[in-house]
Amino acid sequence: MANDKKKVEAITSMDEDFAQWYTDVVLKADLTGYTSVKGFMVLKPAGYAIWELIQQQLDARFKETGVENVYLPLMIPESLLEKEKDHVEGFAPEVAWVTYGGTSKLQERMCVRPTSETLFCDFYQKDITSYRDLPKVYNQWCSVVRWEKETRPFLRSREFLWQEGHTAHATAEEAEARTEQMLNVYADFCEDVLAIPVVRGQKTEKEKFAGAVATYTIEALMHDGKALQSGTSHNFGDGFAKAFGVQYTDKDNTLKYVHQTSWGVTTRLIGAVIMVHGDNDGLVLPPRIAPTQVMIIPIQQKKEGVLEAVDALAEKLSKAVRVKTDKTDKSPGFKFAEQEMRGIPIRIEVGPRDLENGEAVVVRRDTGDKQTVKLEELETLIPALLDTIQKEMLERARAHRDAHTYTAASWDQFKEIIDTKPGFIKAMWCGDQACEDAIKEETGATTRCMPFEQECISENCVYCGKAAKKMVYFGRAY
Amino acid sequence: MANDKKKVEAITSMDEDFAQWYTDVVLKADLTGYTSVKGFMVLKPAGYAIWELIQQQLDARFKETGVENVYLPLMIPESLLEKEKDHVEGFAPEVAWVTYGGTSKLQERMCVRPTSETLFCDFYQKDITSYRDLPKVYNQWCSVVRWEKETRPFLRSREFLWQEGHTAHATAEEAEARTEQMLNVYADFCEDVLAIPVVRGQKTEKEKFAGAVATYTIEALMHDGKALQSGTSHNFGDGFAKAFGVQYTDKDNTLKYVHQTSWGVTTRLIGAVIMVHGDNDGLVLPPRIAPTQVMIIPIQQKKEGVLEAVDALAEKLSKAVRVKTDKTDKSPGFKFAEQEMRGIPIRIEVGPRDLENGEAVVVRRDTGDKQTVKLEELETLIPALLDTIQKEMLERARAHRDAHTYTAASWDQFKEIIDTKPGFIKAMWCGDQACEDAIKEETGATTRCMPFEQECISENCVYCGKAAKKMVYFGRAY
Repeated sequence: MANDKKKVEAITSMDEDFAQWYTDVVLKADLTGYTSVKGFMVLKPAGYAIWELIQQQLDARFKETGVENVYLPLMIPESLLEKEKDHVEGFAPEVAWVTYGGTSKLQERMCVRPTSETLFCDFYQKDITSYRDLPKVYNQWCSVVRWEKETRPFLRSREFLWQEGHTAHATAEEAEARTEQMLNVYADFCEDVLAIPVVRGQKTEKEKFAGAVATYTIEALMHDGKALQSGTSHNFGDGFAKAFGVQYTDKDNTLKYVHQTSWGVTTRLIGAVIMVHGDNDGLVLPPRIAPTQVMIIPIQQKKEGVLEAVDALAEKLSKAVRVKTDKTDKSPGFKFAEQEMRGIPIRIEVGPRDLENGEAVVVRRDTGDKQTVKLEELETLIPALLDTIQKEMLERARAHRDAHTYTAASWDQFKEIIDTKPGFIKAMWCGDQACEDAIKEETGATTRCMPFEQECISENCVYCGKAAKKMVYFGRAY
Repeated sequence: MANDKKKVEAITSMDEDFAQWYTDVVLKADLTGYTSVKGFMVLKPAGYAIWELIQQQLDARFKETGVENVYLPLMIPESLLEKEKDHVEGFAPEVAWVTYGGTSKLQERMCVRPTSETLFCDFYQKDITSYRDLPKVYNQWCSVVRWEKETRPFLRSREFLWQEGHTAHATAEEAEARTEQMLNVYADFCEDVLAIPVVRGQKTEKEKFAGAVATYTIEALMHDGKALQSGTSHNFGDGFAKAFGVQYTDKDNTLKYVHQTSWGVTTRLIGAVIMVHGDNDGLVLPPRIAPTQVMIIPIQQKKEGVLEAVDALAEKLSKAVRVKTDKTDKSPGFKFAEQEMRGIPIRIEVGPRDLENGEAVVVRRDTGDKQTVKLEELETLIPALLDTIQKEMLERARAHRDAHTYTAASWDQFKEIIDTKPGFIKAMWCGDQACEDAIKEETGATTRCMPFEQECISENCVYCGKAAKKMVYFGRAY
């Protein structure tokens, strides 16, 4: 019992110390645990089950757009990583190097993939010969390794789980269309499934992916007002194709380079869910990714008929929703706290008195709202209530995001906002990296993206006052 | 076209050169492809989709027995790998060592997991404190690395995909029961889903897993008469628990060691499917793991109404089966050859004359049987025919296995069989490793398993003539 109790001791208040609150939640909601492998990710059943639901629903959306799954090697020989100049510069400093196979020193060292552009190019170079082989719209679910110095569960770790899509197309137009299409798949998924509203936009030259022509991003706002890059989609043009010689014979019998894209989201999305929806009682999961959507908790469970009624109810509800019962010997209050900590969207309390009245008490995790419901109505009410919760969680997150999105027309205004109001700042930018660097240097705020939906706040760059080219979302970020 | 055509050029006959036939099939059925990463596995869409179907169906069977999925780190610090003596001796010679993180030399080198017993022990040591925490029945789907010298697609590669279950129990009895239970899950899965009959048994001391008290195995017989170890389940007793200090406080308030198991199957199962069911026209997939179960091929597709009829039929069948149409500009004969090479269980041919008669031609991949069927009957006939194919493929594989399982009562008989009749040999064994070694040395045959269903062939060891302890399956193996 001692061990269980620890999980529902009060957690740090998020208003007091958001970082500590986050750590408390990931541990006490049992999402992650410890091993001796420093900085590497551990997903316990409650955490992995969320990832499985993300995978299933995202994978189905991928396949609707014609994506096929594949699997390429875990390791990249150094010579392959080095073929594209910008790319190797971006990744070489943070890869893990394998130098021995068994007792033999390798002739060429290999890195554990930090991302697989170079492997897909190597593969496509051998697999594509004709226009008939195009497009290739491949994806893989796997883990990647980046030797981060400071790590935090789900947000930054030396290994993380993700998917990486890599496509090859006959034309530049087709590649651009796919890059945008996948960004929209991610954005819609975040909103529909994770109940997280995102800003869709383009990264600046400084912030784009190593080797890309253009990087698109979805940016979400966490509860503490910090931004989180939540998914990216890159258009590579024919740069990688030229570096790796990925060519096809077109209908006109001439050799042409393919145009490529890549796009990915990671287990970081779980961090986003925690930091957008969580509260001082713990995790709050949107129903669509809640491994358990409904927890039925018996009251006075030793009284005749209570456990039977709980089982019968679970059986009935299980046809439409993911339901569990907690029949352990813990106290009801303890069970409530545990269900709340784990973010289970709905709790149903069933006791002898409820049964006498043919009723149960239904409690929403997100709002705490309680209602007494006739037992025979639960089968229709619960699925509908889950839909309502899903919808209202998105609305609340959007309202929070909008309430924490500010506009700065001058540098004084910008500095005042960044110091006093955590959130996104929309401001104009001249397009010069010197201003971008200076803003970061002076305030810690980075360019999150140049949103697709541009507005004109003023004619001048918020920092240097020269003619503005773009409206940009700025923010301090994870 | 050139590229496509290569895929259906005649392949090497399996009777002439089984190894070359195998290589031809994995490449021409488009299951695997090439990269510059020597000895590492590549799964193209047709290959990965089979693995996805294996995963889904096996994972559902796991979860029915209470298994929960987790994810532990990709890398193991050397000191952790070394904690269990037999285990490190078994694996250290074949692991890949990471020595650098970015530009910094690691203080302690780490290997890429060859298997994760040590990681799960490390994790359980921190996660288990009370009898209330038991049992832990965890599994992970991931890839592992073993630095093999000679590699073959699906059968032996430096990296492969698998699942590894790792459980911790309060008692020795419970651990033993779980070890057997998971072996039976594997055996039933092979028979029901892969249509591969297996022998269930125990490995000898020599062949058991590094660190295990007992290793159980399922052994399948390939078309060429060689054996393939297809899944294993290990009982560790409390050996790992003692090495790692994995203890719990029991109800009587005393500290006890847990008892552990592990069990796994790999992408090798795809190799088994190829070598059990394939023929000289290519792959033959059991319907339950066929990504496409039915291919509809139009004949004279430019004639009015043909493509429309094909689409309408596909639409109708798609409610119950995984169906595709081939409307490319290849010739019907070419399309047939391609569908056969890829092992798609049923082909439906639809041409203008068939349509006039309200009919279509249905062809089984496994037997080549053709029948003409009324269009309106297809919706009921096709799912039933897939069931029949699934069932008959298992029956044929079982008949082949049984016809290639021999009994040797004497050493002369053993030698004669091994030289002339590829297959399993059942023979008696004294239990002495010296005989096991000598048999392997003289014939290349290894002890596949001591089957759970024992028979008494004679009273004496087939090699030394001393009193026999066990009936053993011998065979040359992959």
